[in-house]
Amino acid sequence: MTMTRVLVTGASGFVGRWSLAPLLAHGAEVHTVQRHAPPEIPGVVSHAADVHDGAAVTSVIRRIQPTHLLHFAWIATPGVYLTSLDNLVWLRSSLQLVDAFLASGGSRVVVAGTAAEYDWSAGVCSERTTPCRPATLYAACKHAQYEVLERWSSQAGFSFAEGRLFWVYGPEEPQERLVPGMIRASAARVPFRLRFPAQVRDYLHVADAGAAFSALLASDVQGAVNIGSGEGVALSRLAEIVGKETGEGLIIEPGEFRADDPAPVVLAEHARLTREVGFTPRYRLEQGIHETVAWWKGHGSPASVTQPKSSVQA
Amino acid sequence: MTMTRVLVTGASGFVGRWSLAPLLAHGAEVHTVQRHAPPEIPGVVSHAADVHDGAAVTSVIRRIQPTHLLHFAWIATPGVYLTSLDNLVWLRSSLQLVDAFLASGGSRVVVAGTAAEYDWSAGVCSERTTPCRPATLYAACKHAQYEVLERWSSQAGFSFAEGRLFWVYGPEEPQERLVPGMIRASAARVPFRLRFPAQVRDYLHVADAGAAFSALLASDVQGAVNIGSGEGVALSRLAEIVGKETGEGLIIEPGEFRADDPAPVVLAEHARLTREVGFTPRYRLEQGIHETVAWWKGHGSPASVTQPKSSVQA
Repeated sequence: MTMTRVLVTGASGFVGRWSLAPLLAHGAEVHTVQRHAPPEIPGVVSHAADVHDGAAVTSVIRRIQPTHLLHFAWIATPGVYLTSLDNLVWLRSSLQLVDAFLASGGSRVVVAGTAAEYDWSAGVCSERTTPCRPATLYAACKHAQYEVLERWSSQAGFSFAEGRLFWVYGPEEPQERLVPGMIRASAARVPFRLRFPAQVRDYLHVADAGAAFSALLASDVQGAVNIGSGEGVALSRLAEIVGKETGEGLIIEPGEFRADDPAPVVLAEHARLTREVGFTPRYRLEQGIHETVAWWKGHGSPASVTQPKSSVQA
Repeated sequence: MTMTRVLVTGASGFVGRWSLAPLLAHGAEVHTVQRHAPPEIPGVVSHAADVHDGAAVTSVIRRIQPTHLLHFAWIATPGVYLTSLDNLVWLRSSLQLVDAFLASGGSRVVVAGTAAEYDWSAGVCSERTTPCRPATLYAACKHAQYEVLERWSSQAGFSFAEGRLFWVYGPEEPQERLVPGMIRASAARVPFRLRFPAQVRDYLHVADAGAAFSALLASDVQGAVNIGSGEGVALSRLAEIVGKETGEGLIIEPGEFRADDPAPVVLAEHARLTREVGFTPRYRLEQGIHETVAWWKGHGSPASVTQPKSSVQA
């Protein structure tokens, strides 16, 4: 089906914002909806409405009549989102949103899911064979959204996919998260604490993540699709790369002792993304971290990256 | 925790109504909430409110301050409920209901789930080991409710269980369903069509189902608990029992040919119910069908049960 008019929710979020340029490049008319008007993005039409306000969102959707819906909006506040009861509200609002989208004639829905839906004892997570076992309220609500939309789409005949996002890094990442924390520690030349330095995770540059969602939306691929690099990096190695790119090195200090990591390796099997969707990530990790460090330096945040060494040493 | 004040939703439904007397027998103060005032039940306080109306339900809950919530209400219209979009609304309203219940100080929640959450290729379904694979929107929404409440209860520290109901029969069963259909066909002496006469299912008398939910609510058992007899009956054998109890016999006519039944056997492993909850079903199938046929005869419905033979033969 032709991707004529796209409605994006959460377009000002960390990943969402990186989907917009690729969507425009696909030739789609791109609309966004958010509570507060975002900065102007050339070529994107933004609409002010709270996604939790069913009447407001329905009215926006009726005006736009989008053919495609790309739904990123969800609670993502670091340190809060995993257990917040807002996850329940987002589940409710997401189902309402899809309902309004379908009622106005929409045909394809893509939502952002999470690697946290999987049972992490699997190591490499495959959409078709790895069981899901959400361990947090966040993951449970995302997975509930997936299961409901999967059945609903199959019975109602609309097209649906969920991008299961693994780990993401890049410019404008919330400072509380891992890579900005490493950059800050490296610049400040203080040790960085990691509970499990040997832990292997799948890190994707956020520009690739945004572009992958855009490609998924433009495709006809249905069901769960992992959005990941398919490659693992040990967190100690990630720290090494960060330290090299800042030029300051980075010392890892193991956190409180824990005998066993319940999830030593979590990687995306990403054959669906590369073969079925036809999307290949552009960034190698080293290059991605290089550009991310450069971005932080250019934007003065995390502040300590641009601190002169003397002040750190003082 | 002491079961002091119980709020029951769906108390006028097929299973829900059978939970009330056992709850009263447990010594609880029993309240029900429904859109339209139900017939008076001695000892039960009923409140008129639409469960979808968050403000109305919250106001009822604030007045009652229930310690326990037994949530049956959900769409159940035969021929409609499996695919109805009302399932989405029930999922949303159920989460709101639990939220309001917790906000008023409630401590234990039990909801009605379904055998349809399981992957039926398993045969005997065990709460701990059988994977879930909801095949309908109904089952997907029920399972989404389970997953969300399971994680939510674990993080928020309230007590939660889901009774996964297998097949149920008994007085006042909606006439469109299997056992009333068999009784009607037997009384009318017309063949009854079954696609898979050899199919084995787990049938529980509705009085046992209601009592099992009451016992589950009164217990401290958490997570999924199968509500089933633990015994299988082939549908052809069920027809034989019905025919014997009506005194008319019942001829089975296989429906349209299908080479393979995707789910030849679906039974409840019911050790959690019998050992952990401590509940044992009271009815043997023959006795249950005997009383059910008697009930239909006494209540003139399905109408044909009480038709004189001569008029059927005419």
